[in-house]
Amino acid sequence: MTLPDDRVPYFLTPGPLTTSDATRNAMMRDWGSRDADFIALTARVRDRLVALVGGGDDYVCLLLQGSGTFAVEAALASLIPPDGGLLVAANGAYGRRLAEIVRRLGRAYTLWETPEDRPVDAVELGRRLAADTSLGQVAVIHCETTSGILNPLAEIAEVCAEHGRGLLVDAMSTFGALPINAPALSIEALMASSNKCLEGVPGIGFVIARTSALGKAEGRSSSLSLDLHAQWQGFEANGQWRFTPPVQVLAALDAALRQHAAAGSVAGRGVRYAANCQALVSGMRELGFETLLDDAVQAPIIVTFREPADPNYDFAKFYGALHERGYAIYPGKLTSAPSFRIGCIGAIDAEVIAGAVEAVANVLAELGITSGAPPAQ
Amino acid sequence: MTLPDDRVPYFLTPGPLTTSDATRNAMMRDWGSRDADFIALTARVRDRLVALVGGGDDYVCLLLQGSGTFAVEAALASLIPPDGGLLVAANGAYGRRLAEIVRRLGRAYTLWETPEDRPVDAVELGRRLAADTSLGQVAVIHCETTSGILNPLAEIAEVCAEHGRGLLVDAMSTFGALPINAPALSIEALMASSNKCLEGVPGIGFVIARTSALGKAEGRSSSLSLDLHAQWQGFEANGQWRFTPPVQVLAALDAALRQHAAAGSVAGRGVRYAANCQALVSGMRELGFETLLDDAVQAPIIVTFREPADPNYDFAKFYGALHERGYAIYPGKLTSAPSFRIGCIGAIDAEVIAGAVEAVANVLAELGITSGAPPAQ
Repeated sequence: MTLPDDRVPYFLTPGPLTTSDATRNAMMRDWGSRDADFIALTARVRDRLVALVGGGDDYVCLLLQGSGTFAVEAALASLIPPDGGLLVAANGAYGRRLAEIVRRLGRAYTLWETPEDRPVDAVELGRRLAADTSLGQVAVIHCETTSGILNPLAEIAEVCAEHGRGLLVDAMSTFGALPINAPALSIEALMASSNKCLEGVPGIGFVIARTSALGKAEGRSSSLSLDLHAQWQGFEANGQWRFTPPVQVLAALDAALRQHAAAGSVAGRGVRYAANCQALVSGMRELGFETLLDDAVQAPIIVTFREPADPNYDFAKFYGALHERGYAIYPGKLTSAPSFRIGCIGAIDAEVIAGAVEAVANVLAELGITSGAPPAQ
Repeated sequence: MTLPDDRVPYFLTPGPLTTSDATRNAMMRDWGSRDADFIALTARVRDRLVALVGGGDDYVCLLLQGSGTFAVEAALASLIPPDGGLLVAANGAYGRRLAEIVRRLGRAYTLWETPEDRPVDAVELGRRLAADTSLGQVAVIHCETTSGILNPLAEIAEVCAEHGRGLLVDAMSTFGALPINAPALSIEALMASSNKCLEGVPGIGFVIARTSALGKAEGRSSSLSLDLHAQWQGFEANGQWRFTPPVQVLAALDAALRQHAAAGSVAGRGVRYAANCQALVSGMRELGFETLLDDAVQAPIIVTFREPADPNYDFAKFYGALHERGYAIYPGKLTSAPSFRIGCIGAIDAEVIAGAVEAVANVLAELGITSGAPPAQ
């Protein structure tokens, strides 16, 4: 049952993910980063990304070299005013990371932590904003992949608009799969990356920001590399990246965006991932597994399962046996219950998920685990 | 004479460069960034890079997502002590960029600018270090691609060692092609990237640093993303990158390093580039062109040519006509004389250079330029 060395498993993780052949094939050429064809490629990708959130003329997309976290840091370093306090609404590790970035930047912030298995409460958010006028902006994670929970972005945005506070959204793991209308939600900036629901390869993060907010960001970042305003000015000046871009990664993203559009854009991607998620959850439940989250708050991105109570269960063995069968899953990241995670995103469909569930069933049998049921709570 | 749309020119630039098919082919698979095979890939690349500068056990390689500038910034932010002044010896745009990074970080530094067509003067450096004990470290560019000049690294290193100052070397455009022995030169840190003389694709920068210097770097960087100490601790803890790595770019770098070793490592690469440079300079001189630099200080990386005096010369036309023939050259970056640049690096040999020189000859004829000779000085 061991995979031959050259066979690559399906990546049922939060990324890097399984990508399509067409996406990887787009990396087979070289580009001059200051040549007309690459400038056109850059412009096309930026425009497509803005269009995906209905950005229109009020928003601009700033591509940035590096992982998604680099783009998040550039956004926070550039868009938080020197005197502005940020309220970070965190219900998982990525929310806490936002706060850690801001802490290190030396800006004023308040970390509001809530349980990892419950969505951010928009009503309570409103109370906090009303009570503390020093909180000029709110930052939130759309889907917190610590658990896989979907935070109620529309409600959060409505509360922020009502109180006249800017909203910064880490949409890393939802961008391109769940609908977001940036102007309708009055979002100040959205941060995401090439290698999640857009199904590109990793190496580029991006920020879609209101030009009016960007216009005030000059000189705010103490980092030359992670300066969103300077990156914007660079693109505006000549369509070029300030520093050497990962040209093949951008070409792959362009190819991935074409496939995304051809397959029904955000709606089409959302439908496929929802089908993946449903097949996964129902299949795993048949094996006795339980999800951490209620179905009502589960995003169709990644699912957290409680570890089985069976004494024969051991994550490393479980992971290894699944990997041998061609499926790479992910460890848990909860601060509370022992768990593991299985992703629903990437260039995979419900048939792949059905194969993964079948593999889980076979692994349970191999390891002598009678049921996936977790300990009684 | 127009290239078909799908034909890609040779990139005679400072990068991104022409890469080999084997390097690009290595990007044809997906990787799980926390899987054992990717952890092994990361370790192999890090070890190979340290070995290229004879680093041994005293040095460690820290890979970083992004362009080379990101790695430079991470090194400066992490390795300059809070109270330590940095002397930046700059004879071009990349030296000035080092100073700009440090200025924005709010650290004490002194920018010592010298003419772009002359190497940094190690004797004068010694005088400056003797005169100002607040200068705890020196930063220099090995080959300043603004002009293509080679700075005298061994002499600079000797002066730094003599005065007991740390030396940070931006070896972006020489790493892998010109010999550098980090311990012999007492170098504190070297910064470079995947896509120059190593002939990988862009998307990864790296720092090779003394572990003793890194050990003092905890908490110094105000950036979470560009924190070299944290990146080191991450690699040490479990062999993994802290944030999503560009997995395909790393696989391409690994493939490029294998080819580099097979072709005689640093010495082999240096010989090929020297032959490229010689063919380029002699061929262009036959057409009347003059180099900015004396041969004695010209690095075999990129060559600056003065613009021809002929009134029919126009860079955009010259560039376009060469591009149509399959050769992408580069504009000048000098603050002084009008110029253009032609690179000698990448997966190209003297035959490609001969083709480029022939194309230049044909373009001169096409544009009605009788000679490449610049205005008399």
